[in-house]
Amino acid sequence: MAKVVQCVPNFSEGINLDVVDRIAACFKDKAGVTLMGVEPDRDYNRTVVTVIGDPDAVVKAVVEAVGVATELIDMRKQKGEHPRMGATDVVPFIPIKDMTVDDCIEISKTVAKEINEKYGIPIFLYENSASAPNRIALPDIRKGQFEGMGEKIKLPEWAPDYGKAEIHPSAGVTAVGSRMALVAFNINLDTQNVDIAKKIAMAIRGSSGGFKFIQAGPAEIKEKNIMQVTMNIKNYKKNPVYRVYETVKMEAKKYGVAVLGSEIIGALPLEAVSESLEYYLGLEEGLNGKIIETKLID
Amino acid sequence: MAKVVQCVPNFSEGINLDVVDRIAACFKDKAGVTLMGVEPDRDYNRTVVTVIGDPDAVVKAVVEAVGVATELIDMRKQKGEHPRMGATDVVPFIPIKDMTVDDCIEISKTVAKEINEKYGIPIFLYENSASAPNRIALPDIRKGQFEGMGEKIKLPEWAPDYGKAEIHPSAGVTAVGSRMALVAFNINLDTQNVDIAKKIAMAIRGSSGGFKFIQAGPAEIKEKNIMQVTMNIKNYKKNPVYRVYETVKMEAKKYGVAVLGSEIIGALPLEAVSESLEYYLGLEEGLNGKIIETKLID
Repeated sequence: MAKVVQCVPNFSEGINLDVVDRIAACFKDKAGVTLMGVEPDRDYNRTVVTVIGDPDAVVKAVVEAVGVATELIDMRKQKGEHPRMGATDVVPFIPIKDMTVDDCIEISKTVAKEINEKYGIPIFLYENSASAPNRIALPDIRKGQFEGMGEKIKLPEWAPDYGKAEIHPSAGVTAVGSRMALVAFNINLDTQNVDIAKKIAMAIRGSSGGFKFIQAGPAEIKEKNIMQVTMNIKNYKKNPVYRVYETVKMEAKKYGVAVLGSEIIGALPLEAVSESLEYYLGLEEGLNGKIIETKLID
Repeated sequence: MAKVVQCVPNFSEGINLDVVDRIAACFKDKAGVTLMGVEPDRDYNRTVVTVIGDPDAVVKAVVEAVGVATELIDMRKQKGEHPRMGATDVVPFIPIKDMTVDDCIEISKTVAKEINEKYGIPIFLYENSASAPNRIALPDIRKGQFEGMGEKIKLPEWAPDYGKAEIHPSAGVTAVGSRMALVAFNINLDTQNVDIAKKIAMAIRGSSGGFKFIQAGPAEIKEKNIMQVTMNIKNYKKNPVYRVYETVKMEAKKYGVAVLGSEIIGALPLEAVSESLEYYLGLEEGLNGKIIETKLID
């Protein structure tokens, strides 16, 4: 079986769609690369790209895209709802088929080195690739954001893994790493009150005593005049999607706020899908091995 | 892309697991054939086999399995909760990849002819393969079941498509055809009252004025001391799984009966999975193209 890697680079531009298109173009019509999704968010001012394919081909396209982002995104002028520290904010590699986590760690280091050498951006290795415990979690690395990174990077414990202790003037810094598949999940709340969204996020996230593998925070969705609980589910087996969704519904009731719906950003592993549907339909035998993808020519 | 066909033969034995094993063996270790599921049901006294693969390889294995069923199952002694008319009750072929419905109709006719010639079982072509409107729906063909089939088959409008107008003494008759993927879905009710299960089945099935693409009936699950609404969802786009499940929950309330859960028999198309999960999570953008199957070696 051929190796398949997934990469989900996040770029700090979600408003100027010309820039988004130029970044996305790096992943189109490339042999061995399948572009699964390009999801710009206006309020976040951020675009999540989801790509899978042959490791070498994916790496090449990603490095090219980071170059385009470095050229076109100026973090000194960038504002958005989503925390960020670089034009290319984060580049995770996820093993999909016939690969180990170690394979992905190796890929992440190759890419980190290449990005630093080509574009002069300092790189933090994170998650499975992290060189120290304080830089495993992306929110810890990103704390202080672009504006605080110039100072932070000079602290001995925050020296970058690749490059000098000096941010790229317009592109900031970038985190690169290997991680397991996660679920990026946002839940929409029918309120404009950021405190309510924050309290709900705190009720579910591990760092505030909630579910261990949830990272969550509030975000304002101006386009829709609502608030959102934006989260990463870092282990969807331990903290399944349905449980998080139903818990947010439960907590929202406390504030008399309706849950309007949700969205998945990027890919959703089939296992996570079937686990949640099993819950909702009370499927006693489960769906393991039963799901079939059809593709008809008629 | 290589052609992939699915076949879901139903055999009228779900109690004697030696017989089930001997039937299942016809699909094991055959090049080009993947056995997805073997699901015997004691109360139904019926086994659903789900297999996909290369059309020629699947056809060969199916014909072999029908031979085993013909040899080992005697319908004169067979009793069960599920309506049936033959040792091999029904053999549907479903296009999965790079195939048309017409391809499957052709396959069904080849198999029908071969089963009749090899084992002397009269065959009705059904669904997309049907030779007349009165034999499109399987329940219409099966009405009267094995016990009534000896008389029925002699009526001019029920002459078999292959073979003489005379049932096989022990194996009865078999329906073979091409159909689109359907969802075989059973919902468990916490009651022993068959009338309640029947009334709920009637509320949801097309033939009684319910959802157009639902075939449903009551069944007693003695093993669990409960009743079941057993159904086929013949078009899961028009009558999605979540809607049927929630409607049964709604109707069950009327009788003060709890819905205990459900089960999928055979395969569930990925589209049907995502459609239902989209409903339960209120996924605004849907899951189209987002679901990814991971297979790690670590």
